[in-house]
Amino acid sequence: MSHLLGRRLKPLKTPTHRNAMRVTASAIAGDGLGTLAQAEAWLAERSLMDRATVTRVPLEELDGWETDAATGDIRHRSGKFFVVEGIDVRGPDTAWSQPIINQPEIGILGILVKEFDGVLHCLMQAKNEPGNCNGVQLSPTVQATRSNYTRVHKGKPVPYLEHFLHPDESLVISDVLQSEQGSWFYHKRNRNMVVEAAGPVEPLEGFHWLTIGQLHRLLALPNVVNMDARTVLSCMPCTWPGIVRSAPPAGSPFHAALLRSCSPEYGSLHTTDEVLHWITDVRARQQTTARRIPLNAVRDWRRGADEIAHESGAFFKVIGVEVTTRHREVGHWMQPMIEPCGQELAAFLVAEFGGVLHVLVSAQPGPGYLNVLELGPTVSCIPDDYAKLPSLPRPPFLDAVLDAPAGRVRFDTVLSEEGGRFYHAQTRYMIVELGEDDPVPVPPDYRWMTLHQLAGLLRHSHYVNVQARTLIASLYSLTTERAGVRAEMVGA
Amino acid sequence: MSHLLGRRLKPLKTPTHRNAMRVTASAIAGDGLGTLAQAEAWLAERSLMDRATVTRVPLEELDGWETDAATGDIRHRSGKFFVVEGIDVRGPDTAWSQPIINQPEIGILGILVKEFDGVLHCLMQAKNEPGNCNGVQLSPTVQATRSNYTRVHKGKPVPYLEHFLHPDESLVISDVLQSEQGSWFYHKRNRNMVVEAAGPVEPLEGFHWLTIGQLHRLLALPNVVNMDARTVLSCMPCTWPGIVRSAPPAGSPFHAALLRSCSPEYGSLHTTDEVLHWITDVRARQQTTARRIPLNAVRDWRRGADEIAHESGAFFKVIGVEVTTRHREVGHWMQPMIEPCGQELAAFLVAEFGGVLHVLVSAQPGPGYLNVLELGPTVSCIPDDYAKLPSLPRPPFLDAVLDAPAGRVRFDTVLSEEGGRFYHAQTRYMIVELGEDDPVPVPPDYRWMTLHQLAGLLRHSHYVNVQARTLIASLYSLTTERAGVRAEMVGA
Repeated sequence: MSHLLGRRLKPLKTPTHRNAMRVTASAIAGDGLGTLAQAEAWLAERSLMDRATVTRVPLEELDGWETDAATGDIRHRSGKFFVVEGIDVRGPDTAWSQPIINQPEIGILGILVKEFDGVLHCLMQAKNEPGNCNGVQLSPTVQATRSNYTRVHKGKPVPYLEHFLHPDESLVISDVLQSEQGSWFYHKRNRNMVVEAAGPVEPLEGFHWLTIGQLHRLLALPNVVNMDARTVLSCMPCTWPGIVRSAPPAGSPFHAALLRSCSPEYGSLHTTDEVLHWITDVRARQQTTARRIPLNAVRDWRRGADEIAHESGAFFKVIGVEVTTRHREVGHWMQPMIEPCGQELAAFLVAEFGGVLHVLVSAQPGPGYLNVLELGPTVSCIPDDYAKLPSLPRPPFLDAVLDAPAGRVRFDTVLSEEGGRFYHAQTRYMIVELGEDDPVPVPPDYRWMTLHQLAGLLRHSHYVNVQARTLIASLYSLTTERAGVRAEMVGA
Repeated sequence: MSHLLGRRLKPLKTPTHRNAMRVTASAIAGDGLGTLAQAEAWLAERSLMDRATVTRVPLEELDGWETDAATGDIRHRSGKFFVVEGIDVRGPDTAWSQPIINQPEIGILGILVKEFDGVLHCLMQAKNEPGNCNGVQLSPTVQATRSNYTRVHKGKPVPYLEHFLHPDESLVISDVLQSEQGSWFYHKRNRNMVVEAAGPVEPLEGFHWLTIGQLHRLLALPNVVNMDARTVLSCMPCTWPGIVRSAPPAGSPFHAALLRSCSPEYGSLHTTDEVLHWITDVRARQQTTARRIPLNAVRDWRRGADEIAHESGAFFKVIGVEVTTRHREVGHWMQPMIEPCGQELAAFLVAEFGGVLHVLVSAQPGPGYLNVLELGPTVSCIPDDYAKLPSLPRPPFLDAVLDAPAGRVRFDTVLSEEGGRFYHAQTRYMIVELGEDDPVPVPPDYRWMTLHQLAGLLRHSHYVNVQARTLIASLYSLTTERAGVRAEMVGA
C-alpha cells in the first residue's frame, strides 16, 4: 500500500475549532464592510422596492391546484411542490387528526460567507415571501426548494446556487438536514448550509454583506431575520472557544454564565452521553403514532369553499392566496398556505448551575417528525388555544414564562415563521431566567442542557426543533451584548 | 438562583473516556471469571439442552396469523408483533417492489455488564432462535421486542429486564436506537443498550459472564455471536484511548494502524465535519422514494400456498415456520419468516493512510431506512443474485474482495442474521486489506473513515447500518490479536 502512504491526514477537530473562532470573531466584530445603520437603510429601501400583492383566494379557486376527488388532498397539477393531506395521531392518552403539508423534497437554506479584512461576512438576501406580515425580511443567500432550483416552474435561475451544489469540502462550514414545524409539515427537512466563497463575490441587487454581530443585533428587532436565516445561524458553531479559560469574563453574572455555556471547557448537569440516553429513552417510550390519511378523513375540521378550519377556531387554518410580485423567479402564482389562529409563544427557561448557563429543553413529539420527537423550547404553544379549548392541558412552565418580571426576561421578540408556506405566522420568542420561586422539579420529558451540548447535537439531524433553533440563535445573539468582550477575545 | 448554584457539574467527557478505558481493558484481558474453553463448553452444553423443533409450514396454515382479504398483508390476529406488507421503490434509474416486514415497535437489545476483579464482564445469553441454522447462539442479556416485554403473548417474564427499563443514568454505558436490515425491515430499530449492574447479579440458567476479549475471540467462529450481540458490541466505545500516544505499538504494521484508527489522537483523510457534509449531500441528492403498498400489489413476486418468492429465484422468500421449544417465554408458535436465497457477502476494504487504518464505507439506500440511507460495508450483496439476474449491475469492489489473496484477508467468518425474523440467513463477513492493484479512485458514494470516526457516528441513530456494525465489532476483535498489547496498555 506504499502508494497510499503519502496521503496527508487532517487533524480531527482543527477546522471545526478554527471556524468556531472565525464565527465568534465575526459575532464580536459588530460592524464590518458597512454599518448597522447602512444595513437597516438598505433593508428599508428593499422593502419599498420589493413589494408583492397577496390576496386571499378561496381554496376552490386556486389556479394550478386541484382537489383529489377520492381523498380531498390538495395538490399541484404538476405533481411537484407540496400536497395538503391529513394525518391521524393516536396514543395511549390522545387521538386526533389534522391537515398537514407533505413536501418530501429537500431544499437548500444556504448562507454564503466570505472574509473581508479578516472578518467573516454573510451574504444576506432581502426577500419578500407571500406569508410575511411585513413584506421583505432577511433571508439566507439561497432559500430554494428542490422544485425551485431544478426549475420546475421554469422561472429565473436561483442566484449563488452554484456555491451550494458542488462545494469543495474545505469550503463547507456546516451542512446538516434539519426538520421544520412538526405540527404543520410531514417529514419536512431542509439542508442548512454555510459555505465559504472561493473567489470574489459581487452582491447582486437585493443582497448585502453583514457580519454575524450585525445579524445578532437585527435578531432583536421584530420580523426582520426570517426563519430560514435563523435556523442556519443556529447551526453555525459559535462556541466561544477559549474565551473564558483563564479569567471569568467581564459583564453581568448572566453574561459570564452564557459565555461559559458556549464553551467546550465547562461541564454540565448531565453529560452528553446521559442526554443521548434520555433522548433514546423518551423516543422508545413514545407510543403515539402518526399515520397519513386522506384530507377528507380528518375529523373535527370543517372544509368550506374558502378554507379548512378546526371546529373550535383553535390551531390553524388552511387558506388560499394569490401572489403578484416582480422580484421572484415567477411573477404570479396561487397556492394554499397555513394560517395559525393566534400568536405562538416559544420560550426557553434558562438557569445558571455552577456558573454555567443551562437551557431547559423539552422532548416534543410532533406528528410530522421523522424520528418521533425532537428537543423543543421549554414552552411552545398558542396561549389563546387554552381559552378556546378548556379541556386542553395547560403546558408546564407557561405561567412561569408569562409572569416573569421584566428583569428576568433576556430576550423577547416577535419573529415570523417561514413565509413561503405559513401566512402571517408570528411567534413570540422569549428567553427567561428562572426565578427563585419557579418550579424547579424537572418533569421526565425535560432536561437542562448547555449551549455547547446543543451545538453538538445540531451537527446532526432531528435532535433540535425549529423553534428551539431560533432560540439558540437568539442566545448566541446575547453573547455579544457587552462592549467588554472584544478585548477579552483578542487576549484569549 | 442561589438555591441552584450548589448543583455539581459533570465534566463533559470523563465518563465516556473512563468507559472506553474499561471496555478496552476488558478486551485486552482475555480470560476473566472463566476461561474461553469453559465458555465454549457451556455453550456446547446449552446447545444440547436447548433444542427447538422448527418445521416449515405453508404460509396459509400459520395459526394465529391471517391474510388481509383486501391487501394480502399477513398480520397476527392480536394486531401485535409484525406485518408482512409490500413496498414500492422508485427513483430516476430504478423501480421495483418487494415484500417487507413492518414492525414499528422499538425493542431492547441490552447487555448487562459488571466488573469482577476490576475487569468488565458481559452477561451473555445462550439463545435459540427459530431461524438459527445451528440452534443456540450467544445473544445479549436481554433481547426483547416491546410485545415480548409487555407480555402480549402472556409468556414468562424476561429475565434481567428490570436493569434496562429504568436504569440510573450513571449506570448507562451506551443507549442508542439503531436500524436493522433496510431491505427486509420497514423503519425497524432497536435500542442498543449497555448497562452496568448496580448490585450482585446471579447468572440464571442459560446465562454466562464473558469478558469482551472472550467475545472478540468467539466472533471469529462461525455462527456463534448472534446479530443482536454484535450490534450492541459495535456501540461499545472501545477506542483504545492513549494507548499509542508515545510509541507505536508492537505487532504488525496492520495492527499498529488498526489501534491508531481506534484512537481519538490521530487524524483522518476527511474531518468528521467533512464526512457529515458528505452524508447530508448524498441524502439530499437521493431521489429514490419508498412507499408502503399492499402485499398483493407487489410486482414480479409469486405467492403460492407455501411461500412468496421472486420470479427469478433471487433475493429472498417469505416462508412460514412452526416452532416448538421448552426454553422460551412461550413454548409453541407459528410465524412468517424471511429466507434469503443465498449467502450474503458483507465486506470492508481497509487501507492504511499516514499510519492510520481507514475503512471504505458506502452510502447505502435501503427501502426500509427511516432516514434515506445509512453507511454500509464497502460491498454487501448476495453474489449468486448476479448469476440469476444478469441485468443487475455488479457492485464496485466485489471482485477486489473476492479475489484478494489470503494474506490480505484479515477477517472471514460466516455469521447469522437475526434468527427471530430471518430463516437460515447467513452472511460471510470479510475484512480485506486493499491491494496495490485494487481500484483506488473512490466513487462519490464511498468514503474512507477511521474507526474512531465511526464510533462517533454510532453514538447517534441511523448513520451506520447493521452489516457495517458487525464489521466494526469484528475490527475491534482484531485489536486484541497480539499478545504484546497487554503490557502497552498497562504502561499507557
